[in-house]
Amino acid sequence: MTQRVLPKFNTERFMERFTAFSEIGQTSEGAIHRPFGSDADVAARAWITRLADEVGLAVTVDAVGNIWGVRPGELDAGMIVIGSHHDSVPNGGRFDGPLGVLMGIEVIQSLRERGYSNQHPLGFVSFTAEEPNPFDLSTLGSRSVAGRLTQASLLAATDWNGRPLSDAIAAVGGDLHAFPSVRKTADDIAAFLELHIEQGQRLLKRGIPIGVVTGICGIYRESVRVLGEANHAGTTQLQDRRDALLASSEMLLAVERLLHEWNDDELIATVGRLNVSPNAMNIIPGACEWGLEIRGGDMARVYGFRDACFQAFDDIATRRGVQVYHSVLLNQKPQPMSADVINILQKSATDLAIPYLDLASMAGHDATHIASFTHAGMLFVPSIGGKSHCKEEESRIEDIACAFDVLVAAMIALDGGIGRSL
Amino acid sequence: MTQRVLPKFNTERFMERFTAFSEIGQTSEGAIHRPFGSDADVAARAWITRLADEVGLAVTVDAVGNIWGVRPGELDAGMIVIGSHHDSVPNGGRFDGPLGVLMGIEVIQSLRERGYSNQHPLGFVSFTAEEPNPFDLSTLGSRSVAGRLTQASLLAATDWNGRPLSDAIAAVGGDLHAFPSVRKTADDIAAFLELHIEQGQRLLKRGIPIGVVTGICGIYRESVRVLGEANHAGTTQLQDRRDALLASSEMLLAVERLLHEWNDDELIATVGRLNVSPNAMNIIPGACEWGLEIRGGDMARVYGFRDACFQAFDDIATRRGVQVYHSVLLNQKPQPMSADVINILQKSATDLAIPYLDLASMAGHDATHIASFTHAGMLFVPSIGGKSHCKEEESRIEDIACAFDVLVAAMIALDGGIGRSL
Repeated sequence: MTQRVLPKFNTERFMERFTAFSEIGQTSEGAIHRPFGSDADVAARAWITRLADEVGLAVTVDAVGNIWGVRPGELDAGMIVIGSHHDSVPNGGRFDGPLGVLMGIEVIQSLRERGYSNQHPLGFVSFTAEEPNPFDLSTLGSRSVAGRLTQASLLAATDWNGRPLSDAIAAVGGDLHAFPSVRKTADDIAAFLELHIEQGQRLLKRGIPIGVVTGICGIYRESVRVLGEANHAGTTQLQDRRDALLASSEMLLAVERLLHEWNDDELIATVGRLNVSPNAMNIIPGACEWGLEIRGGDMARVYGFRDACFQAFDDIATRRGVQVYHSVLLNQKPQPMSADVINILQKSATDLAIPYLDLASMAGHDATHIASFTHAGMLFVPSIGGKSHCKEEESRIEDIACAFDVLVAAMIALDGGIGRSL
Repeated sequence: MTQRVLPKFNTERFMERFTAFSEIGQTSEGAIHRPFGSDADVAARAWITRLADEVGLAVTVDAVGNIWGVRPGELDAGMIVIGSHHDSVPNGGRFDGPLGVLMGIEVIQSLRERGYSNQHPLGFVSFTAEEPNPFDLSTLGSRSVAGRLTQASLLAATDWNGRPLSDAIAAVGGDLHAFPSVRKTADDIAAFLELHIEQGQRLLKRGIPIGVVTGICGIYRESVRVLGEANHAGTTQLQDRRDALLASSEMLLAVERLLHEWNDDELIATVGRLNVSPNAMNIIPGACEWGLEIRGGDMARVYGFRDACFQAFDDIATRRGVQVYHSVLLNQKPQPMSADVINILQKSATDLAIPYLDLASMAGHDATHIASFTHAGMLFVPSIGGKSHCKEEESRIEDIACAFDVLVAAMIALDGGIGRSL
């Protein structure tokens, strides 16, 4: 198949669908509130299923509620899947997730309309519960497919109010008792592609429409506990204080200073959670617990940065007469994307004369888990203002059109070449 | 009455009683856990009542549970009262409160043993619920006596678990339905003296055994809210962050720096409470709320310090692209002690050749409220290591003996001179 027969992006149709889908769970302020298990989640699933039916895909819902739609191929071979998720964070945006799901359907429909005769079955997927949720189980759907969750742990899981996860899964059409059937292998899925918004500003600032994701960053988390001395806020003079919150404040600023010094686009650290004890206006903070998260594409640099932070923390602690204790909460290695899929995405963009940037994803995605057992790749489009997880989340249709073109070309390359090169 | 007939401090008896009383509510670690309404509170009341009976004082318990013991005088005049409180903070120390209660009984007993014939009735008091408690009503007893609480608010009050305050008051022998009878005036109490530990190190560092309290510091509290932008902790680059916690960290350190610059023994500021929102490890803090407390003997300096803080906060906020909002939570003016009582305490110490230091109390006390309607004064003794509200709380018996001598002399002066000089 030559380049000239590639289908064109149907901007009007895509935008119409995207706008309609964005009504589901939209708040009066214009945010999208579509968390896992919500009425909006259920409504979104009905909408996706109806659309997939309309475009002639055979829809199934697996035991954790993942929605799969398939167009059969000429061969009895593994499916080439394109997709993402449809749930949102509380009061999130329109693009994070649904862009990839609707694009999956759009690519398959466009190839069919163009008369493309696929060898492999082509499918789309919308995964269950990608975002953080009250069950503390993000990327639930893709982790289940990848065999990274156990049936026992899911059957035991409840939300913060004690609602069993099994109820929530049943409400979205799944059945945890059939959990083992969810697992897929490289035989089932020959390749997986996910389109997602970047959620940062690396593409935007460089004016590049497409990012080829080389891997998902590693995430390293430590719980840091600073112990000072709780004392009377009136009678304890400044020089007699061992204030755990002031010591922590200095440590947080040290992390920020080190980030400026290291000046690395693919290394970031955040203290997002901090709790003070006893947390009373008239008592000097005796203890302070906080979470240090470091993300990076290269774990050697992540560990190096961690060591630099703890050296700074120790100096501050010694000077202020407090103790610092820390323990590792998470040490998640980077997940590289398939080198073959990366090559196909890069070549497709090059052939189409679409500029692209190779980058590591600084966020986790469903593709992280699918990449653990089969060939997976991701494309990013720029996020306007770098905003995400908020109602201002936005991407330009021109960039989305570029992504469509690259995905179509990549799908065809995967379909034709998957038996040879992959 | 000449100085040579003053009673001597019965160290052995006082220590024996103090040690016995300290058993009540003592934890296995040696701390005192005797919060308002606890079994230890009830046991402490029985112990105090029994002792007061033994030394011949007529004991009554008022409608909020304050324990009063009286030795009648020659005149039908207002009572001269000496006392403090017997409750403790959770896992507190032995001295905060009980020192003043037991000393009240000791002074009256010693005067009687010496054959002193008092003109005014002499009394001791142990106030209910001086310390912070689950009903959010510290200095409950003294505020009730001073008419600073209303019956309606107390009848409506519950603890964090919904237990009515009226139940807790009934359990310690009071009856909120008789609340109006609690109120006392200057006709009832001609003068009030309270002995307390300093809880700081001003006396200790100067090696002075006695502090004459000139007033209770003012307490000023603001709720400060810093608004940044919640965003993804992985994908948001350093230069695009508006982290409310980092901004707050810088502000807290600015308060500390200003305290060093102002370098004033009687001005202190603390941020004891801080809450982060949304407080998740993978989300950049979008908002941070914290309580700034400033204490000082001179409100002009308190306000000046507040203004200096907010100037610094505004500079930080501008530089970091966050907003700062604040609202006053408490603006409690300093409460001067009675000038006449201060004079009598100073003169008593001078006559006895006991060194003393005039100082403002940086903590609130029951005397704060009694001073609002009658002549009140306070003496401090040094706190070893400045420690308080912990099991290490300790004062030297030599300093306590000095306080006894000054209190005895002051009681006699008040009793003889109250009709003339006060």
